[in-house]
Amino acid sequence: MEFKSNERKVSIEWGDCDPAGIVYYPRYFAIFDGSTTALFENCLGMTKYQFLKHYGFLGYPMLDTAARFIAPTRFGDTVVVQTKLVAVGRSSFEVEHKLFKDGSIAVEATEKRVWVVRDPADVDRIKSQAIPEEVIRKLAR
Amino acid sequence: MEFKSNERKVSIEWGDCDPAGIVYYPRYFAIFDGSTTALFENCLGMTKYQFLKHYGFLGYPMLDTAARFIAPTRFGDTVVVQTKLVAVGRSSFEVEHKLFKDGSIAVEATEKRVWVVRDPADVDRIKSQAIPEEVIRKLAR
Amino acid sequence: MEFKSNERKVSIEWGDCDPAGIVYYPRYFAIFDGSTTALFENCLGMTKYQFLKHYGFLGYPMLDTAARFIAPTRFGDTVVVQTKLVAVGRSSFEVEHKLFKDGSIAVEATEKRVWVVRDPADVDRIKSQAIPEEVIRKLAR
Amino acid sequence: MEFKSNERKVSIEWGDCDPAGIVYYPRYFAIFDGSTTALFENCLGMTKYQFLKHYGFLGYPMLDTAARFIAPTRFGDTVVVQTKLVAVGRSSFEVEHKLFKDGSIAVEATEKRVWVVRDPADVDRIKSQAIPEEVIRKLAR
Repeated sequence: MEFKSNERKVSIEWGDCDPAGIVYYPRYFAIFDGSTTALFENCLGMTKYQFLKHYGFLGYPMLDTAARFIAPTRFGDTVVVQTKLVAVGRSSFEVEHKLFKDGSIAVEATEKRVWVVRDPADVDRIKSQAIPEEVIRKLAR
Repeated sequence: MEFKSNERKVSIEWGDCDPAGIVYYPRYFAIFDGSTTALFENCLGMTKYQFLKHYGFLGYPMLDTAARFIAPTRFGDTVVVQTKLVAVGRSSFEVEHKLFKDGSIAVEATEKRVWVVRDPADVDRIKSQAIPEEVIRKLAR
Repeated sequence: MEFKSNERKVSIEWGDCDPAGIVYYPRYFAIFDGSTTALFENCLGMTKYQFLKHYGFLGYPMLDTAARFIAPTRFGDTVVVQTKLVAVGRSSFEVEHKLFKDGSIAVEATEKRVWVVRDPADVDRIKSQAIPEEVIRKLAR
Repeated sequence: MEFKSNERKVSIEWGDCDPAGIVYYPRYFAIFDGSTTALFENCLGMTKYQFLKHYGFLGYPMLDTAARFIAPTRFGDTVVVQTKLVAVGRSSFEVEHKLFKDGSIAVEATEKRVWVVRDPADVDRIKSQAIPEEVIRKLAR
């Protein structure tokens, strides 16, 4: 099964950067999180606020992520982020991101996330749940 | 060669958490960044501001990082972060973090960073440089 | 009626600072938010997670805030934040913060917040609610 | 003298929001900071990275800011931010922001900032400097 991909432009801002003048790397993870959500929003035709309500779940927190920082970016740069869903399991899925600056790869990342709901047995806990069939169909290419 | 380690307590705050009520995962990377710096500050006996000036470098940006999220944490939690320098090369070094909540592992991460200076040939660029011998001695156990 | 106050130390970290090397000012608001919560946690003897559940409310979002930045702070600085509850109304309250570096005032801020619950008539909305008498008693000096 | 204004759309993301499901208010200040920079970039025809170098200064840190939060916004919302330069002095300037959601005002803010350079007498300090005449001309309507 092949899944959809997504591309978006992101402007690197002053507040994303640290005293070395380059992006403070935790900010890249926020950019990738936004890209994963943009992919879902495009596939499902709803904002995240809407699709959480529509499918009755709490989100897709991260299980595992890794990133490789190849070249720095800094405020004033407009970067392109390519995001590709590479695997969808029963309750988890995997995503790959590539962030380009001036056509060259600057950062690449992988992530594995899990579909969760509030645990009905304990409101303080979250638990994984099967991704709805309809969602998987809409994520497929 | 064996290197030093460090442990610190971190309070998870409301602003670290997302609408699912748990830590927004990019924030963990900021916590780990603070822990790596705390380890250097302890070993070198100076604040980061002071040791950047003292050793004439720009910082230690991330080359590679990976994290595994085992259990969520949320505002009100006080977590313990154990940080261990596991390898020091010519211009790079590797760190491992373990974040515990109530004595159980919640997040673990690895990182590889590089010692950089402003490129004298092009002020817009940064380049790696050998870590000073004195710093390596102070990082060693 | 006089209300309680609170003081805490905060370490300014690399990731709080921008390419000018000083705190990125939105971060001060996160510091002040943490200080208001610390004041409530001390007065109520519970973490924010616990007191939101105990008193059945959603939080105290900001209505109005103003800050004056008198001197910059930067990574490596440990600052002291003094926080004082100055007025408590039916469903809102006012707080003042003073942030000191080396004994000199660096930032001062005022805030007015409102006690809110989820609107039972529309789960998408929040609405103000009277602050419980017990909370007001515990906030009083 | 009348000065230029600017308008931009901003997408509110999951990571901008707190456990109450609404924007964590310090994030609005980062949005406004980006809007002030967008106004300067448009007027000067350069990115912030470029105009800091071109005019040889370190930035325009905040002296005073105030914000009023009239209605909450949340992830999935696309908001419009109107930004207007309202006064330009010798070394400081004032800006007003209005943030709209679905055509209604959600947040309004004022800010006063100062043009700064690194203090040549003490590299650890910043000091104010006159805003270049050319910049003022380009900011004027």
